[in-house]
Amino acid sequence: MANWKCIMGSVFGGALLLTAGILLGHFAIPKEAPSPDWIHKITQDVDLVTLEDFMNQVEAANIRENLKKLSAKPHMATTKGDQDLVKLLLERWNDPECGLDKATEIQYDVFLSFPDPEKPNRVAVVLENNTEVFASRETEEKLTPDQEDPDIVKPYAAYGPPGTAKGKLVYANQGRMSDYEFLLNQSIDLNGTIAITRYGGAGRVAKAINGAKFGVIGVVVYTDPADINDGKSSPEETYPLSWYMPRSGVERGSFKTGFGDLLTPYFPAKNFTYRIPEDQISGISTIPIQPIGFEDAKELICNLDGPKAKAAWQGALGCDYHLGPGFRESGSFSNTSNVQVSVYNWRQIKPSSNVLGVIRGSVEPDRYVLYGNHRDSWVHGAIDPSSGTAVMLEITRILGKMVKEGKWRPRRTLIFGSWGAEEFGLIGSTEYTEEFFSKLQERSVAYINVDIAVFANATLRVQGTPPTQSVVFAATQQVKTPADASVSVYENWKRHFNRSSSVYGIIPSLGSLGAGSDFAPFIHYLGITAMDIAYTFDRSKTSARIYPAYHTAFDTFDYADRYIDPGFTSHRAVAQTAGNVLLRLAEALILPFNMNDYGETLQAMYDTAERVFQTDLLNHGISLVPLRQAIARFQSAAAGLNQHITGLQNEDSPSPFALRMVNDQLMLLERTFMNPRAFPDKHYYSHVIWASRSSSVATFPGLADAVAAAKDQDEWDHVHKHLTVVIQAVENAASFLEPVAE
Amino acid sequence: MANWKCIMGSVFGGALLLTAGILLGHFAIPKEAPSPDWIHKITQDVDLVTLEDFMNQVEAANIRENLKKLSAKPHMATTKGDQDLVKLLLERWNDPECGLDKATEIQYDVFLSFPDPEKPNRVAVVLENNTEVFASRETEEKLTPDQEDPDIVKPYAAYGPPGTAKGKLVYANQGRMSDYEFLLNQSIDLNGTIAITRYGGAGRVAKAINGAKFGVIGVVVYTDPADINDGKSSPEETYPLSWYMPRSGVERGSFKTGFGDLLTPYFPAKNFTYRIPEDQISGISTIPIQPIGFEDAKELICNLDGPKAKAAWQGALGCDYHLGPGFRESGSFSNTSNVQVSVYNWRQIKPSSNVLGVIRGSVEPDRYVLYGNHRDSWVHGAIDPSSGTAVMLEITRILGKMVKEGKWRPRRTLIFGSWGAEEFGLIGSTEYTEEFFSKLQERSVAYINVDIAVFANATLRVQGTPPTQSVVFAATQQVKTPADASVSVYENWKRHFNRSSSVYGIIPSLGSLGAGSDFAPFIHYLGITAMDIAYTFDRSKTSARIYPAYHTAFDTFDYADRYIDPGFTSHRAVAQTAGNVLLRLAEALILPFNMNDYGETLQAMYDTAERVFQTDLLNHGISLVPLRQAIARFQSAAAGLNQHITGLQNEDSPSPFALRMVNDQLMLLERTFMNPRAFPDKHYYSHVIWASRSSSVATFPGLADAVAAAKDQDEWDHVHKHLTVVIQAVENAASFLEPVAE
Repeated sequence: MANWKCIMGSVFGGALLLTAGILLGHFAIPKEAPSPDWIHKITQDVDLVTLEDFMNQVEAANIRENLKKLSAKPHMATTKGDQDLVKLLLERWNDPECGLDKATEIQYDVFLSFPDPEKPNRVAVVLENNTEVFASRETEEKLTPDQEDPDIVKPYAAYGPPGTAKGKLVYANQGRMSDYEFLLNQSIDLNGTIAITRYGGAGRVAKAINGAKFGVIGVVVYTDPADINDGKSSPEETYPLSWYMPRSGVERGSFKTGFGDLLTPYFPAKNFTYRIPEDQISGISTIPIQPIGFEDAKELICNLDGPKAKAAWQGALGCDYHLGPGFRESGSFSNTSNVQVSVYNWRQIKPSSNVLGVIRGSVEPDRYVLYGNHRDSWVHGAIDPSSGTAVMLEITRILGKMVKEGKWRPRRTLIFGSWGAEEFGLIGSTEYTEEFFSKLQERSVAYINVDIAVFANATLRVQGTPPTQSVVFAATQQVKTPADASVSVYENWKRHFNRSSSVYGIIPSLGSLGAGSDFAPFIHYLGITAMDIAYTFDRSKTSARIYPAYHTAFDTFDYADRYIDPGFTSHRAVAQTAGNVLLRLAEALILPFNMNDYGETLQAMYDTAERVFQTDLLNHGISLVPLRQAIARFQSAAAGLNQHITGLQNEDSPSPFALRMVNDQLMLLERTFMNPRAFPDKHYYSHVIWASRSSSVATFPGLADAVAAAKDQDEWDHVHKHLTVVIQAVENAASFLEPVAE
Repeated sequence: MANWKCIMGSVFGGALLLTAGILLGHFAIPKEAPSPDWIHKITQDVDLVTLEDFMNQVEAANIRENLKKLSAKPHMATTKGDQDLVKLLLERWNDPECGLDKATEIQYDVFLSFPDPEKPNRVAVVLENNTEVFASRETEEKLTPDQEDPDIVKPYAAYGPPGTAKGKLVYANQGRMSDYEFLLNQSIDLNGTIAITRYGGAGRVAKAINGAKFGVIGVVVYTDPADINDGKSSPEETYPLSWYMPRSGVERGSFKTGFGDLLTPYFPAKNFTYRIPEDQISGISTIPIQPIGFEDAKELICNLDGPKAKAAWQGALGCDYHLGPGFRESGSFSNTSNVQVSVYNWRQIKPSSNVLGVIRGSVEPDRYVLYGNHRDSWVHGAIDPSSGTAVMLEITRILGKMVKEGKWRPRRTLIFGSWGAEEFGLIGSTEYTEEFFSKLQERSVAYINVDIAVFANATLRVQGTPPTQSVVFAATQQVKTPADASVSVYENWKRHFNRSSSVYGIIPSLGSLGAGSDFAPFIHYLGITAMDIAYTFDRSKTSARIYPAYHTAFDTFDYADRYIDPGFTSHRAVAQTAGNVLLRLAEALILPFNMNDYGETLQAMYDTAERVFQTDLLNHGISLVPLRQAIARFQSAAAGLNQHITGLQNEDSPSPFALRMVNDQLMLLERTFMNPRAFPDKHYYSHVIWASRSSSVATFPGLADAVAAAKDQDEWDHVHKHLTVVIQAVENAASFLEPVAE
């Protein structure tokens, strides 16, 4: 162009020359290199203003309204109530003004268990001629209008087999192996007996599986007022007059070990999927089992014959607990009468839905921050799980609005999950991880679970693996407590749950993840860094095992609104905390995980192992030194990585590949502890550090359990093998944190 | 330039104005944002000039010199010869002028098996009074000075148990199950017999494991001239006068199924590692077994009694092969004489080294392109494996020099491996993948194996998974054949091995990867895209099972130099091809893998399954439709990804995160087919598409084997389960290729 103008001649010569010069100067002389339009976007870090803005938009009233809608009707998995909520979720997430980029429903055909609506399960006392002289209630008392809903499922033990068992009653405390052994040591013949057990101490189904080993033919389970009501049991002291469980309240639940669809382990339960025959299912009861309320339990336990139970076995039913077998002649029932457990449950494969919602990432769409909760309840499920869903919907409303208004889009992709059939054993979330295992395993930064958002309104409690500590600490320091705006959620949390860290001094104490909610398949099966966030009790004020209406017909909006979180301010604090964590993970240029924290945890586990096991191990020629060395290597690698990260943070404009490199190290570190061959007998447990553990020694689970077994059976080779599993995992993790090209 | 000259011709004032304009234009008008210094580097694609430059530097004479040094002495795993080569490798890779950035030796304590140097193994004919009337040679004849080396290991079957077995001899062809069954059907009682078998048809140890099932108590194995020498057997026709195996040549080898260190499956064989008891080792022989030369085999087979073997069992020993049992009275031995196999092997845990060499990547150091070969041989190992090592050293010399001169550094990290103890079952490479599984699995683009670089000098042959096809095709089109510079290696390859592709028409045919060399742990255990590259025979000119000196004392530099590749031009072509592939993988902005090619392979496997299995499956209520649909989904996802890639390639300056995203999809796709629970009985085999297969139907291995078993045992549930494994894997892979945030 300039050339052509030059040829034009003299008239406009000067002006033209100047113009030509400007054009040349601007376009023809390169300034280093042209700067692509993505340069600004890819170097944007987490923005505290966005975080504050998000938190300010969280409205307690909205969460309350969400909860009211979500818990208006019973919504047990796959029922109409559940299906209606699927529609509600889809509608919200597809809302043109505050929805997400996309919402999808994904169905699985899963194996469920229900009571027979025509033939109620019952626990009865029958005379020798089979005349019934007592029977348990069919369902809860109608204390508020909520209990009148015809869709309330009658209390039952899901997956408990149908059948009738009749025998003398024994009281077996919590139904642990040690409880049944104790009865045997009291010369009580358990063969052919019915055992009544209280909730707690052992998993639900363990009470039946253990009992069957001793000849028990039927199990009754109830909630003792000592365990849930701080001893209170009279109608004047319980809901609707307080938060305590009414005498007719029955905790429903899934009675199985492990998780996921029972017929399709490791496969998504699709129409093409192979299903194992029902007789090959393991981890469920082989004998009838039925839960009842404590009013009914009182009739049974307070009439028992036999020796008086020891102090630790006594409860708050208002009588002396005896062990049985059978009733005492001086009580309400003749001593020849039996207890009969009649169960009419049936099993069925039914379609259950997950709802997935997505906000696409702008810079790294292939990095996922996952957030989820189950949708299905046992009855109205106001607290479990709708408090969590109400929080999730408030978070997605705010973020969805920001996206729809074109104001904001996260660096990474956000995926929200509303899981189906969690109450039957984390089925929806497990099937999801089975179907999309590679996408999730290769791309997920973390999974945030908020199931029961508020157990009580005293303090935050967080369970998670070590990498979550730093991001949760950062977020909670930014959130105010509901009770006192001058105190951060972090400070309040530290007052309630704390520990002394060798690195940080006194800090809030993170719990570790079991398998109690949908985080389980993410952490145990896929090795994705996971956490569970909730508000909970002041432990100095109640000894309740869990909030008293748990899994009963009294877990209603009214209950939540009046007793759990009036004003919904704790719900708001959970939404602010979880949303803050979510945004930090989604937006941070460098992921806010600190691998030193994993090093501290490994060290603590090692110290316990050394303290408790070393003598036995050395006696069998097994040395812990290589493990100690592996952990030292890990710690040194973590420190080196942190140094490298500090260097990057001090660079004006670090290379995107350098950022992605450390982020991949941080994101995938959790995965390096996975060993799918470590625990062949434990479905889905592959995480060498966090797998389930039977031993009470809080250290590497495979090692702890192997030592316990070896002490019984002298299999010290097995201990050496599990120690090798741990050393290999830690060495492998360390090498993953070390400089990548050494 | 024309523009500038034009301006120069104007008046001085004009020049001033122009200068002012240029200054204004350059400095006063901002250009968007400053451009970081990594911008240029991260957008650099593979450079054809660098490729040509590399290929021009490959010198046949250097490879010849390398080979001479590498094969000067026997270097069986862990012997002094092997340790000397460790030093040589370290020296070369640490060379200040043409070495790599770093070289490291990593040791494992591995379980090996050796013959007793004091008590040679022997196969003898003994009379009833135990007088020996014939004995096999202790080792090969000294035909050239090489055979005089005192470090030559005497022929033996590694991992064959020590022991002596005496019995009547039978001829069992190749020792397959069907061979022994055939003998049984001929009413030959195999109990207490010694079976003589020829190499080929079944794995080495299978001949003994199968025989033991039929009561055979000892096995002799030899190489028939029909199988290796195109029938030639006289000293005038064999080495040193031709490439054929001399009559005293004995193929040594590892006699075990599976791979990796036998005592430490899934663990690196370190000092801390748990080792299984020796009596729990599976996949090795329980009866004595010994390999012999065909001169000795002739004495045994040509004197056999019993019915004449069928035509397919006849060989080229120059007599009629009879089945036995025992010798015929009219032959060299009395018919009461027995064959006695005496084996004095012992087993030992010894330190074996891998040598690792690294060139750090400049842009993506956390992406690895792996290249390796084993270092250990049975004897001098000129061809196996030193031809490959000689090629590797020439490649690293050239690249090392470019790096040391500061001229060049690859985008991604290159890792070169010289593996130990491959001949004992891929031990060094397997332990390496066990020790560093997460680093390797998360970061490896591909593994290139060049073991025997040149079997013969007729044509290239490549084995690899589908993603390797496109990059190997691109590379081979750029390399010239040794024989005719006007013909590319690609064209020549296509003449020798081709297939008709539904997508491309006639193209060279890639072989699939078994477990014959160190690529096995990378592809089968970690799911890393892998390939094996070599020059090989014109199959119309020889029927040799492999090059005739394989695993004998005649695999020497002299043999390689005179008969396998005089002039080393085929070695050069392999170095150019493998190096070209390596550089493309290391340098390409977008990885040169085409996922459509996986789709084509899946389709071909599906078509075979449908053709062969459909009737049986439908009879048992099992539908292939979901698999067909899964493959269609995969193909559509692959096509979509290709479209997306084309879009990126047309962008001037694609975002680095967008590049990394598709590269991660391309790199990790192979991993999405991994299922560590798919084949619990097959150590290390987790790749659903490429696991080992017993069935002869060339389709999904788990499905094929399950159908074969079901036809025997009516276990069609097992077929449905394996079909589910395949469908789940393909669906999972498809979802990994689909847009990441849907």
